[in-house]
Amino acid sequence: MPEIEDVLSDLAAEMAARPDRGEVATYIPQLGKVDPRKFGIAVATVDGRIITAGDAEEPFSIQSVSKVFTLTLALGKVGDALWKRVGREPSGNSFNSIVQLEHERGIPRNPFINAGAIVVSDVLLAGHQPREAIGEILRFVQFLTDDDSVYIDQGVAASERETGFRNFALANYMRSFGNLHHPAELTLGVYFHHCAIAMSCRQLALAGRFLACGGRNPATGHSVISSERARRINALMLTCGHYDGSGDFAFHVGIPGKSGVGGGILGIIPGVASVAVWSPGLNANGNSHLGSVAMEKLARAMNWSIFSP
Amino acid sequence: MPEIEDVLSDLAAEMAARPDRGEVATYIPQLGKVDPRKFGIAVATVDGRIITAGDAEEPFSIQSVSKVFTLTLALGKVGDALWKRVGREPSGNSFNSIVQLEHERGIPRNPFINAGAIVVSDVLLAGHQPREAIGEILRFVQFLTDDDSVYIDQGVAASERETGFRNFALANYMRSFGNLHHPAELTLGVYFHHCAIAMSCRQLALAGRFLACGGRNPATGHSVISSERARRINALMLTCGHYDGSGDFAFHVGIPGKSGVGGGILGIIPGVASVAVWSPGLNANGNSHLGSVAMEKLARAMNWSIFSP
Amino acid sequence: MPEIEDVLSDLAAEMAARPDRGEVATYIPQLGKVDPRKFGIAVATVDGRIITAGDAEEPFSIQSVSKVFTLTLALGKVGDALWKRVGREPSGNSFNSIVQLEHERGIPRNPFINAGAIVVSDVLLAGHQPREAIGEILRFVQFLTDDDSVYIDQGVAASERETGFRNFALANYMRSFGNLHHPAELTLGVYFHHCAIAMSCRQLALAGRFLACGGRNPATGHSVISSERARRINALMLTCGHYDGSGDFAFHVGIPGKSGVGGGILGIIPGVASVAVWSPGLNANGNSHLGSVAMEKLARAMNWSIFSP
Amino acid sequence: MPEIEDVLSDLAAEMAARPDRGEVATYIPQLGKVDPRKFGIAVATVDGRIITAGDAEEPFSIQSVSKVFTLTLALGKVGDALWKRVGREPSGNSFNSIVQLEHERGIPRNPFINAGAIVVSDVLLAGHQPREAIGEILRFVQFLTDDDSVYIDQGVAASERETGFRNFALANYMRSFGNLHHPAELTLGVYFHHCAIAMSCRQLALAGRFLACGGRNPATGHSVISSERARRINALMLTCGHYDGSGDFAFHVGIPGKSGVGGGILGIIPGVASVAVWSPGLNANGNSHLGSVAMEKLARAMNWSIFSP
Repeated sequence: MPEIEDVLSDLAAEMAARPDRGEVATYIPQLGKVDPRKFGIAVATVDGRIITAGDAEEPFSIQSVSKVFTLTLALGKVGDALWKRVGREPSGNSFNSIVQLEHERGIPRNPFINAGAIVVSDVLLAGHQPREAIGEILRFVQFLTDDDSVYIDQGVAASERETGFRNFALANYMRSFGNLHHPAELTLGVYFHHCAIAMSCRQLALAGRFLACGGRNPATGHSVISSERARRINALMLTCGHYDGSGDFAFHVGIPGKSGVGGGILGIIPGVASVAVWSPGLNANGNSHLGSVAMEKLARAMNWSIFSP
Repeated sequence: MPEIEDVLSDLAAEMAARPDRGEVATYIPQLGKVDPRKFGIAVATVDGRIITAGDAEEPFSIQSVSKVFTLTLALGKVGDALWKRVGREPSGNSFNSIVQLEHERGIPRNPFINAGAIVVSDVLLAGHQPREAIGEILRFVQFLTDDDSVYIDQGVAASERETGFRNFALANYMRSFGNLHHPAELTLGVYFHHCAIAMSCRQLALAGRFLACGGRNPATGHSVISSERARRINALMLTCGHYDGSGDFAFHVGIPGKSGVGGGILGIIPGVASVAVWSPGLNANGNSHLGSVAMEKLARAMNWSIFSP
Repeated sequence: MPEIEDVLSDLAAEMAARPDRGEVATYIPQLGKVDPRKFGIAVATVDGRIITAGDAEEPFSIQSVSKVFTLTLALGKVGDALWKRVGREPSGNSFNSIVQLEHERGIPRNPFINAGAIVVSDVLLAGHQPREAIGEILRFVQFLTDDDSVYIDQGVAASERETGFRNFALANYMRSFGNLHHPAELTLGVYFHHCAIAMSCRQLALAGRFLACGGRNPATGHSVISSERARRINALMLTCGHYDGSGDFAFHVGIPGKSGVGGGILGIIPGVASVAVWSPGLNANGNSHLGSVAMEKLARAMNWSIFSP
Repeated sequence: MPEIEDVLSDLAAEMAARPDRGEVATYIPQLGKVDPRKFGIAVATVDGRIITAGDAEEPFSIQSVSKVFTLTLALGKVGDALWKRVGREPSGNSFNSIVQLEHERGIPRNPFINAGAIVVSDVLLAGHQPREAIGEILRFVQFLTDDDSVYIDQGVAASERETGFRNFALANYMRSFGNLHHPAELTLGVYFHHCAIAMSCRQLALAGRFLACGGRNPATGHSVISSERARRINALMLTCGHYDGSGDFAFHVGIPGKSGVGGGILGIIPGVASVAVWSPGLNANGNSHLGSVAMEKLARAMNWSIFSP
């Protein structure tokens, strides 16, 4: 088995040189300004090591990767009652499809498509002002990372609000079925802000490490969630974490992962490590192009696929 | 860790006693005649042991579980060219949906839904008469099992042909898009026959073991397929192996699996073992009810989920 | 041919006595309060006569019938450019379906489903404040009716705004495709108010009469719209005026019509008369149950179907 | 009002000269061989006159126009019971869509889309051999036309059978829901043959004239169907006769019509005349391009829209 350090530095060099970089998301102006030449990667092992390469210290907008953390929080808050409002099946549709909602009467297919994550935000909002709920999410991510410098990019959040018409459509649509308990403006306030969390690869790998450790934080030894819940969140990441490219990611990479349109991907290798990779250009499914490529090469080099002996 | 023998015999006793047994499939008369009280389970470990409990020696109709074997054969025949004709994404729809085919112009979402498996049959038919293709599939399964007593139940095959109107619809529909290269009658002849393969739990666990062993047959040491291909087939089983209940199976059980309406499920624990379970009653998604329950309990008892440390 | 007076009074008596009255819409509280025993009917002939029976002088919420008038206004404002933003085909779906919008990228199928009428409101809002646009619509309907007592029921409008989540979903969804040019709140302000126009059957029959007269107002002799435009609006009413029950209305009644969930229907017999009928209880397609029955009986008695010699 | 003779000869001259002729259907080879420069038109008035222009005596494949005649026959055979197996609503989808059938469990939306017409063929097949049912349909059309030279083009019928995979899909799909009572091969044998009926414009106008005459054949004075049934068939032609271009045809032309991919259109002006037009090139909706244009010009010149005073 090669050393992780060597694999990461080779990967970073190779990715920096590749001409095919995908397309940076432009649906909100702030994301479109990011330099497509960026590439960072970080691995946090279950035995406490952190290995990084490339632009691994530079914060980026984690966007939908944050849904892993809000799902974890919401399960802690309401437990399995969450599954009355959100399904656990891959969507078979693009990430912001509204068709499925009509056929299934306002119940999103899973917590990682936009509609499902909006319901999760709605759960976190219960009994709070939006500002409080946003604060709770941010503090939870800071706690997981053990780093208070994780922050919310207010410009990104404001920009999402101004242009997020489809999310307003999804939220109002679910509300028409009774599956949103707060006004769309409030719930989406929570949603837009947690999507605007900015983290570096190093921070993101640390934040996700509890999922590789059966729910425990190896730095402190404290349990964040039960091992059963960690296992189930990993399963959801594998089947639903990359929108309509989830099957392809499982096929090629073979590790549970969650992507964001900011170009970040968080991957979990149970019992081994968590990985965060960042490259802003996206592929046709809206997932980081070089991030996916790097994950596949890393999993192959380290034999990290959960589908291998 | 408990002994497998103890876990299996406890499971068989518990499952035999449960009153909730699901509904036996009746869409073809032969399947409807099976005794719903049957329950069998078999584990074939990578180090060569076979452990069984319950009705593990009784042949049943493996139905869609056979799609794992035809996919393996077709990949051996045409390699990745297969993926031009079949996708690799969960369907987000029931197993025989035709809607998706209209939206995606005749390309089935994955090789485990009916439409995808029909395309796989069409690939295996190329250059052959149906009888030859059927013979090749049967011999391959006998080879994997190392047991010539595996057979095709001609009554089941004939019954499927007489009532399989929806499969004729799917086949003709794909043909209208050019994604079926032979007359529907011929391709479906292959398809109906491989679905009618009858095997016991013991045989099925043995037949699937190569997927737990990186593609090798541990009995002979010979490689059936490459380790990369085995890993990828496992990934497809995880994301697509249980129709529209695939997400739920991953969530609760956490091992790659493929179910059939005959009540069988084949599960793969990479590097550890293959498992076959059989209980004829089905749940709402068309997967074996007690088979799914038993798989979940087994995976938990043995810590076999691929999403656990 | 019988006398209209006799037919109407017989109809009103028969309808008053029928036990099957459909279900009064309850999705906004104000509509649910209406007495289901109400039945009114009015005919305005092209030669200037008005014949009424039953509760023909009592104002009711015309709801979607108002879409005929806003469409007329919008065509006057932007002409055939409207058809770049709205289609002219029956929807084949229920009146508030969002599925079609996803498949056709934000272009509603016709101006009489909710999404299409919201686009029409958006056209009328251009260059105006919502209050001005609402005022213009109301004055246009008063002008057509030649009656300043036509009014907007502010309670109904407010109630629609509070519960109209699906319309907010539709509006935001179209905005995500660029087919809404104003914030959803503003456009829907216009939409909710014109749906809240209250009129009696007498007033409604008078307001629609120009469509039976080749676009002219026979009271004044002035042309409201060209005869070609009147003919085309009639065609749209025939093919799209009753949501997913349009085909059935054409089959049974055979005259262009537009229904509203308040229980009103406006019918046009070109060259002969306009008819307004009102009965609050709805059938399964959301159209007035007894209103449809009465229209069918009236058309048969007077041989008014446009499909008859 | 101008003379019909003058309008038709002007139209024929204008259409012969136009460069925009649409695209001739090529999905079956025989249709693709037709000369796109052909244009014929014929009017049969209720008072017994026949006026023609252009290639009005040349037989062409009437294709889906035949569905008007099979519907008439099937209603005569089973009456309103037909509507348990076929709907009466516009489809909101392209003519051979299978999606709608899945959502509505095997009940086609109307008798003029392919699936609906196949059910109508299935009704006509009951109690007969396919050859007898085909003979009955042909004799009915010959009777309406009062012309034994109307024939079935066997080459077209055979070609449709060889390439009609999507129709086989539709038929088998409906059979899976129990809405086809005979094997697909037999029912489609009837369907493919009646679509292959060849007629000239003169013959087609004569055959359809009973629908303009309240169900009577003015030549003989005998009633073919009741006036109510004639009125209802006209309504279905208006709302559903041009696939997903029905709304547009109503909007622009304003007369009940039925088109076929052979380039023919039959139009009915109740109480006035029937019209048959033929030009082989099709528009994007699969309807005759110049046929539609000519119908619009004719309706305008003669003030024949049913939506005009």
